[in-house]
Amino acid sequence: MSNGIVAFIRRKTAMRIAESENTPGYSPGLDGVIAGETALCHVDEDEGGLRYRGYAVSDLADQATFEEVAHLLLCGTLPTRKELKEFEGRLAAEALLPAPVEAFLGMIPPAAHPMDILRTSVSLLGMIETDAEDHSHDANLRKSIRLLAQIPLVISVAHGLANGTPRMEAQPNLTFAENLLCLLTGRRGGEEWRLMAHVLDVSLTLYAEHEFNASTFAARATASTMTDLHSAVTSAIGTLKGPLHGGANEAVAEMFLEIERPDRAEGWIREQLGGKRRIMGFGHRVLKNGDSRSAIIQRHADRLSRTCRDRRWYDIALIIERVMRQEKGLCPNLDFYTAVAYLLMGIPRRLYTPIFVCSRITGWCAHVIEQQDHNRLIRPRALYKGPARESYVDIDHRR
Amino acid sequence: MSNGIVAFIRRKTAMRIAESENTPGYSPGLDGVIAGETALCHVDEDEGGLRYRGYAVSDLADQATFEEVAHLLLCGTLPTRKELKEFEGRLAAEALLPAPVEAFLGMIPPAAHPMDILRTSVSLLGMIETDAEDHSHDANLRKSIRLLAQIPLVISVAHGLANGTPRMEAQPNLTFAENLLCLLTGRRGGEEWRLMAHVLDVSLTLYAEHEFNASTFAARATASTMTDLHSAVTSAIGTLKGPLHGGANEAVAEMFLEIERPDRAEGWIREQLGGKRRIMGFGHRVLKNGDSRSAIIQRHADRLSRTCRDRRWYDIALIIERVMRQEKGLCPNLDFYTAVAYLLMGIPRRLYTPIFVCSRITGWCAHVIEQQDHNRLIRPRALYKGPARESYVDIDHRR
Ligand SMILES: CC(C)(COP(=O)(O)OP(=O)(O)OC[C@H]1O[C@@H](n2cnc3c(N)ncnc32)[C@H](O)[C@@H]1OP(=O)(O)O)[C@@H](O)C(=O)NCCC(=O)NCCS
Ligand SMILES: CC(C)(COP(=O)(O)OP(=O)(O)OC[C@H]1O[C@@H](n2cnc3c(N)ncnc32)[C@H](O)[C@@H]1OP(=O)(O)O)[C@@H](O)C(=O)NCCC(=O)NCCS
Repeated sequence: MSNGIVAFIRRKTAMRIAESENTPGYSPGLDGVIAGETALCHVDEDEGGLRYRGYAVSDLADQATFEEVAHLLLCGTLPTRKELKEFEGRLAAEALLPAPVEAFLGMIPPAAHPMDILRTSVSLLGMIETDAEDHSHDANLRKSIRLLAQIPLVISVAHGLANGTPRMEAQPNLTFAENLLCLLTGRRGGEEWRLMAHVLDVSLTLYAEHEFNASTFAARATASTMTDLHSAVTSAIGTLKGPLHGGANEAVAEMFLEIERPDRAEGWIREQLGGKRRIMGFGHRVLKNGDSRSAIIQRHADRLSRTCRDRRWYDIALIIERVMRQEKGLCPNLDFYTAVAYLLMGIPRRLYTPIFVCSRITGWCAHVIEQQDHNRLIRPRALYKGPARESYVDIDHRR
Repeated sequence: MSNGIVAFIRRKTAMRIAESENTPGYSPGLDGVIAGETALCHVDEDEGGLRYRGYAVSDLADQATFEEVAHLLLCGTLPTRKELKEFEGRLAAEALLPAPVEAFLGMIPPAAHPMDILRTSVSLLGMIETDAEDHSHDANLRKSIRLLAQIPLVISVAHGLANGTPRMEAQPNLTFAENLLCLLTGRRGGEEWRLMAHVLDVSLTLYAEHEFNASTFAARATASTMTDLHSAVTSAIGTLKGPLHGGANEAVAEMFLEIERPDRAEGWIREQLGGKRRIMGFGHRVLKNGDSRSAIIQRHADRLSRTCRDRRWYDIALIIERVMRQEKGLCPNLDFYTAVAYLLMGIPRRLYTPIFVCSRITGWCAHVIEQQDHNRLIRPRALYKGPARESYVDIDHRR
């Protein structure tokens, strides 16, 4: 048993065993604690590597489209040409917003946060789902593919309405990433654009899945009461919104815009570190030795910077990375160079975290399906730290 | 260290240590695993007892109103008369629905699930919150009190619209429970009604808080990315909806209605058990020896049955409880006799889980405040169970 227990606590360093023998220790934030099983993704924390259902994410980013990755995560295999065509056909057919969602989007105040819009829209889509209470594998898969098709539209329609730009429709002859770029920026065509769409495609593949990250784990906790899939995805969206998670990519871009010029980068970052501020786009709960996805997106951000003849953001990023490694020993995470790429693509900053949703919806839904296929309620315990026993005092005798 | 580790794994029986020394063991569903600290609530699994901030829940149920309990959980102390008056004044002042929520409620299809309506409404309230991005203790507390006041209105307005019944307004001279009974049933006044309101008040106190139950834990996981409070509550509502959690009280009532008469109860339950079906309202992840809250609400359900001269549901419940104890060794949980009480109150069955929300919103919000006051990201690990390494194959050569 001792061996099992030692293994159970993966990161002993993270364990804070309480001093007293009577107080049980625990790992804050469940750092290193195994909370369940998955066949979707393996994170190699030592090498920073990542595999989706056994396939190295570097191979997928280099050779597969995001649609193939989505099929892998949701349907279990890399698709044949025929399967891919069918999958793309389903996505195209599901790319429609029901009338209540259109009505809701039509009444949103322009200042609303896109992640709040998305969370509310998915909750609303759940309310009008016809097979909402069917948790079978097949029903969950149907709902997942529908959400994958609908989410880019929700983001695009809401953004268009808030900014008075013309409504864009999804084009069946474009890839998922091409469509998304078009829907979010209104632009289409040209060599540079094609490269942008490719880099966006790569970033979607890299964002698709990452084991029991906070939003995925929240989705699984929700799903574990055997509630509906949309409830679980709604939880995930609200969780991703936070600055410690998906919100980081927007915060990184804001940092770059604030720094403005490479010659200001070093002074700016040293000032932040002096003020003990947390720098967005660095650090990771699991990948303490660096994230292989970061190197992949960095390479693409570099190439895009050269093609666009705008190296400003990339150069700022290089300086910040150097100082952070030197001063804090922290490596950039996936959000860091992704922000460089999205800035170059001209995607509105408030849509960066929603793009993360467009991709991670595949991982979330695959985890919800996996959870409900082999369910056990997720219900841990807490360590009580309050007063032991208070005697009840009548309201007229209090204080 | 060994002592700490042993204590860390509270319920050793739940641990499923893997056979191989190389495979780490873990506790499915985080059964018995400590996931964080709280000063809000202590569950004594051996005696089935429960304390909110040190006060025995039995004392609170007997002597305090739900408003006092809400103040205890949210503000930290049982209120003095003056504090209670102020708290009630704030609740009355916040009992308003913003125009976008009214517009949303006005367009809901009548068949929509009340928990989906509630989840979407709270998400929408988050979208239009003015201080949404302020996670300070005070801002979170303000938002919590506002939600406590708004949720009964959302339920009542949506239910009224779906059923064409006249709109009810909250009355400042009624207690929270009296108002809720009025809002949900349209009835008010009389001896029997006053007892019903009292029993509803007790059930709200009993439902208010229960440590790291699934919905509260989902709320904390969401809050741990430092997203907004409404995101966390939205997660909790979607989680509570599931039949393994809050959805159980509705399922229990459905069972009673299906059984219809006490003389059919024993046959019905034995048939279910023969078919290996799960009986709603029995069992608990933590309270394996019984739940002291169940005895409290049973006493009130008994009294209400006698006052209403309708012992049908109570008698059915007694028979089912006896058979479940005999055959499965399982004790009723809080949802079981609560369903008897709610049936007698004439509350529409689809509103039982929403009532749970009206109460548990206090516990959820108190936990979100606690989480964000001392935050660490909740991000566990998974045990990988998929294929080790798959070689990438080009799409034209698959299968
Ligand atoms: C991702 C993150 C939440 C992981 O956090 P974690 O595993 O809980 O680690 P902790 O927050 O306990 O941080 C450990 C230490 O590293 C420091 N640290 C971690 N990330 C840091 C960052 N981005 N900038 C500065 N310091 C950081 C912490 O201050 C802490 O130092 P301390 O022990 O002296 O207080 C954290 O690295 C972070 O906040 N990063 C910035 C947000 C971000 O980019 N998120 C996207 C993640 S993919
Ligand atoms: C609450 C609940 C999810 C706790 O579950 P848990 O700790 O994960 O326990 P498990 O689901 O692993 O159940 C343990 C065993 O008891 C049995 N069991 C638990 N609750 C049961 C019930 N209500 N009816 C019949 N059998 C039940 C299970 O079938 C299982 O037996 P097995 O080991 O032979 O398969 C579970 O008791 C349940 O589903 N209850 C009914 C729903 C309900 O009332 N929920 C409200 C909770 S407050």
